[in-house]
Amino acid sequence: MTRHFDLELKDLKSLLLKMGGYVEKSIEQASLLVIRREPWRFREVQASEIEINLLNKEVDHLCFCLLAKQAPVAKDLRFILAVVKINVDLERMGDQAVNIGYAGVDYVRRPMINITQEMSDMTERVRLMVRDSLDALVNRDVELSRLILERDEIVDQYKARLLDYLQDLMVHDRTLVESALDLIMIARNMERLADHATNIAEEVIFLATGEDVRHKGARLKEVNGG
Amino acid sequence: MTRHFDLELKDLKSLLLKMGGYVEKSIEQASLLVIRREPWRFREVQASEIEINLLNKEVDHLCFCLLAKQAPVAKDLRFILAVVKINVDLERMGDQAVNIGYAGVDYVRRPMINITQEMSDMTERVRLMVRDSLDALVNRDVELSRLILERDEIVDQYKARLLDYLQDLMVHDRTLVESALDLIMIARNMERLADHATNIAEEVIFLATGEDVRHKGARLKEVNGG
Repeated sequence: MTRHFDLELKDLKSLLLKMGGYVEKSIEQASLLVIRREPWRFREVQASEIEINLLNKEVDHLCFCLLAKQAPVAKDLRFILAVVKINVDLERMGDQAVNIGYAGVDYVRRPMINITQEMSDMTERVRLMVRDSLDALVNRDVELSRLILERDEIVDQYKARLLDYLQDLMVHDRTLVESALDLIMIARNMERLADHATNIAEEVIFLATGEDVRHKGARLKEVNGG
Repeated sequence: MTRHFDLELKDLKSLLLKMGGYVEKSIEQASLLVIRREPWRFREVQASEIEINLLNKEVDHLCFCLLAKQAPVAKDLRFILAVVKINVDLERMGDQAVNIGYAGVDYVRRPMINITQEMSDMTERVRLMVRDSLDALVNRDVELSRLILERDEIVDQYKARLLDYLQDLMVHDRTLVESALDLIMIARNMERLADHATNIAEEVIFLATGEDVRHKGARLKEVNGG
């Protein structure tokens, strides 16, 4: 491959990191909207989503150009195909944050339920998973990717505990049904954000080692546990 | 491009249609599980998911080989990149059907809520959206793709009505809280299945016309609609 190819590959990585930055920001803003009951933050979430969507198109276009002009093979081709998929995940993560925003805007009009600590912890974990998954991609860091897979299980546990708590609230206090339902949707969206970061980590492992962890672990565990 | 390339492209399309067939089947089985309260159908859903995951790898591999060996450009390159993304959607649809299965297995152990008609209608619409989205891809049918975008809005309305009804039930009858919550999750997963079919239709429109409908319509509408 040419030196020009390496430069464009570097551009591609920068774009992904930038996109990841906006995803982190939108997760943080959506979470603060819910925790501090500040609906104006929804505009921030939407502003990040616009940037994410623009970057999504830019990444797609750069991948297309790299493939068309350079016709890479082997390792480089695999990397670009992974980026095409990861780009989809990042765009959907922007959507998820917006979904949290919508549910949050509904929630702040309703009776409050105190889940500040759990929501802050969950948000911080998910945000770090996003950052680390892209760092893992750029540095082909398999160890970090495996760590993300483990952290996904912890986020699942957070969500499960929150769901139990909120479901119990609903049964015992009908005035909290709507608030609890909003928070359940928000917790589920947070979990799905973590799932997307996990998808990225799985792509990195496949890219670096050829090991396909995409359709095993989590799913089998779920079947046995479920 | 060579004649060999055309043959491989035909293979790729067959694999996608086969994958779509399993997705349709798994949606149908997951829905019957819920409607008829037949938990044994979960095995059918899982069996389809295994096939979907195998096909997912096969499609990825074929795309890689096509790009590496044939280095297509322009139209053919765009098609293969679209397939890489659509393959992600189809794999996630298999996951969604499994999620419906899990919630369904929980639901059948709980008090029944009669939503047979709504669930059947919604399932049938979503199943057709999946089939049509892949037919649209294979035949580059822009008109059919636009129809799918419209149908997605109808599925959203189904989901919204179901959610209102179930939320109301929860407020008025605490013994139905858990059943209603399961059905809300199921309705949301159905809606997400329709979203994936919509993603496919949007890719087809982009592929055939260059028009990017991915980040407009639905989202802006949602914002204005509150």
